[in-house]
Amino acid sequence: MRDPRDYISARATAVDASGIRKVFDLAAKMKDPINFSIGLPDFDVPQTAKLAAIEAIESGHNRYTQTQGIAPLRERLRRDLSAEVGRDVGEVLITSGVSGGLFLAILSVINPGDEAIFLDPYFVMYKHLLTLAGGKSVAVDSYPDFRFHADRVERAITPRTKMLMLNSPSNPTGVVMSQQEVNQAVELARKHDLLLLSDEIYEPFLYDDEGGKKPTLASPARLYDKTIILRGFSKSHAMTGWRLGYAAGPEAILSQMTKLQQYTFVCAPSPLQYAALKALDVSMDQAVADYRRKRDLVFNLLSRKFEVVKPQGAFYVFPKAPAGKTASQFVAQAIENNVLIIPGNVFSERDTHFRISYATTDQKVQEGCEILNRLAG
Amino acid sequence: MRDPRDYISARATAVDASGIRKVFDLAAKMKDPINFSIGLPDFDVPQTAKLAAIEAIESGHNRYTQTQGIAPLRERLRRDLSAEVGRDVGEVLITSGVSGGLFLAILSVINPGDEAIFLDPYFVMYKHLLTLAGGKSVAVDSYPDFRFHADRVERAITPRTKMLMLNSPSNPTGVVMSQQEVNQAVELARKHDLLLLSDEIYEPFLYDDEGGKKPTLASPARLYDKTIILRGFSKSHAMTGWRLGYAAGPEAILSQMTKLQQYTFVCAPSPLQYAALKALDVSMDQAVADYRRKRDLVFNLLSRKFEVVKPQGAFYVFPKAPAGKTASQFVAQAIENNVLIIPGNVFSERDTHFRISYATTDQKVQEGCEILNRLAG
Repeated sequence: MRDPRDYISARATAVDASGIRKVFDLAAKMKDPINFSIGLPDFDVPQTAKLAAIEAIESGHNRYTQTQGIAPLRERLRRDLSAEVGRDVGEVLITSGVSGGLFLAILSVINPGDEAIFLDPYFVMYKHLLTLAGGKSVAVDSYPDFRFHADRVERAITPRTKMLMLNSPSNPTGVVMSQQEVNQAVELARKHDLLLLSDEIYEPFLYDDEGGKKPTLASPARLYDKTIILRGFSKSHAMTGWRLGYAAGPEAILSQMTKLQQYTFVCAPSPLQYAALKALDVSMDQAVADYRRKRDLVFNLLSRKFEVVKPQGAFYVFPKAPAGKTASQFVAQAIENNVLIIPGNVFSERDTHFRISYATTDQKVQEGCEILNRLAG
Repeated sequence: MRDPRDYISARATAVDASGIRKVFDLAAKMKDPINFSIGLPDFDVPQTAKLAAIEAIESGHNRYTQTQGIAPLRERLRRDLSAEVGRDVGEVLITSGVSGGLFLAILSVINPGDEAIFLDPYFVMYKHLLTLAGGKSVAVDSYPDFRFHADRVERAITPRTKMLMLNSPSNPTGVVMSQQEVNQAVELARKHDLLLLSDEIYEPFLYDDEGGKKPTLASPARLYDKTIILRGFSKSHAMTGWRLGYAAGPEAILSQMTKLQQYTFVCAPSPLQYAALKALDVSMDQAVADYRRKRDLVFNLLSRKFEVVKPQGAFYVFPKAPAGKTASQFVAQAIENNVLIIPGNVFSERDTHFRISYATTDQKVQEGCEILNRLAG
């Protein structure tokens, strides 16, 4: 007679979540740690958006919406994105977070054996979702500067390569692709006829202005229409628990993603979609300014003792562990000293760096970095 | 150079949603139809649950929850379900609707080539999700009484059969499995070592009491511990847009489902989980009584002209199209006469019956049934 575990699919077994679990097991023993592990903003949803959600709930917007999302939100996003990239971005689909968009995009295009390329270090979900789809993850080493090296990426392209995945600003490195790097990525995509997936979830968190101008993201969608843009409200508007993201791109692909959403998530949470529409009119400039200050603080503190690339976006920094230690060893030591960080091997084939999320108070940033500096000797 | 449609995966292409789309295309031309197509309650979320959602939003429960859902909700559901089935049901996972639970269960257990059995007519998502997983749908004909015929089901079992899927009360037939039928299903599962998936999304909508006692669902989970129970709040508490369901069952399988949720939906919408907890204390007896009355109304009206099985649950009835017409032909005729119904071939290998959702006003039920009766001649 079969035990329940004998029914598990090979696909599920292949998704290995043990790395992050080990960290969380260690973390569970910590009391009031300095928590640098959390991938979400430390502010709450803007009040305007809360009020809009409440009004939507009260007025009965609690039923399924259309699978693709409510029309005013989709139209607004299409208009805004099209203005930003200088051409019609195509269809817009409201997804259950950017993770929902990633999932739908990958299931819609990746056949067993197809290859998708992304930079290492990478957002951990890419690998797992490609595994779920039977695809092959091709992680191109971007150490030590974490930048897009077109030559390395081109060497990884094979006849089975179908998609190039970009993530700028990057989790876990905070690196933002320059216009020149984006140009190179688009050139490669054109030359090898690849689909581009541009994960822009951290889009508003950009810190380096050019001559006083508010920085804007160099999105490949400006240059290449076979781009799927993924963005969301989770990080920009602190709505991680509201499960709201969106995808935009060629109608032929978005319609497949919509069909798959219809048979999986059905739709993003209805009342919260109305709130997202209002959130688009809330300025997040103050939040971005706060995070820029924290970025400067953490970079200035850590660069005294660590090899660290200055991030230009998101709220992560990815320093190198001290000489003679793996990242996992250093993380264990940090946890013993009440600082919770994530070892690089969760995001990488290497175990040499560690991720800090500085989305916490300036005081915690200060205290935590001082402890890490002390441990670095 | 590849066109965007050249990137579509075989998996996405294999999911055929054309049946329902044809109906919606026809429906789009209707002005203020008598709408018998909608698979959701016509009442709104209970006020207590709305207030709880609002309080959760205001007090900042807007971030990711644990992947498996908030502890008080999981504990409460585990306690209630365990009391109901007379043993510990195992782990509980809060999912993004019951569709989210179905998706996670199927991806967690179905390998390419594995077979899953369910009755025809069936909830349309079963087929599509099995297709997504590379599994084989084995639909066992249950016409004309739509009951569980153990002999027919047993004939469909092969060495590749891994799972038996039950849906009681059923969408689209409204049929509820008797205790004897459930016993037979469990016996088959034991004999052939199958996993049971029990889709109980319509659980509170049960109309036939036994000697004045409030009816309770005969769940296979009472008898067989290799059962995954799926239930939700969408139908019972009119929260279809809130995307809240739950799965309960053996820890070994639920832990895989949780892992896959972590890399797809991440978690069910946070503030709405707090509302679901409060919703559990709201009596839905009045709603069930209303639907029982509508069930009687629609059955009494339609049985004058149609061959129709009396439903015992949910809010659907599945009558046979008039002699000499396919269901699709009859549906087209009904739509011309302003009544929107769904042809059986959306839920079945046959195109002989049609689905009515009577989750609308008594007046609409009356008007719509009279028109259908007139068309039946």
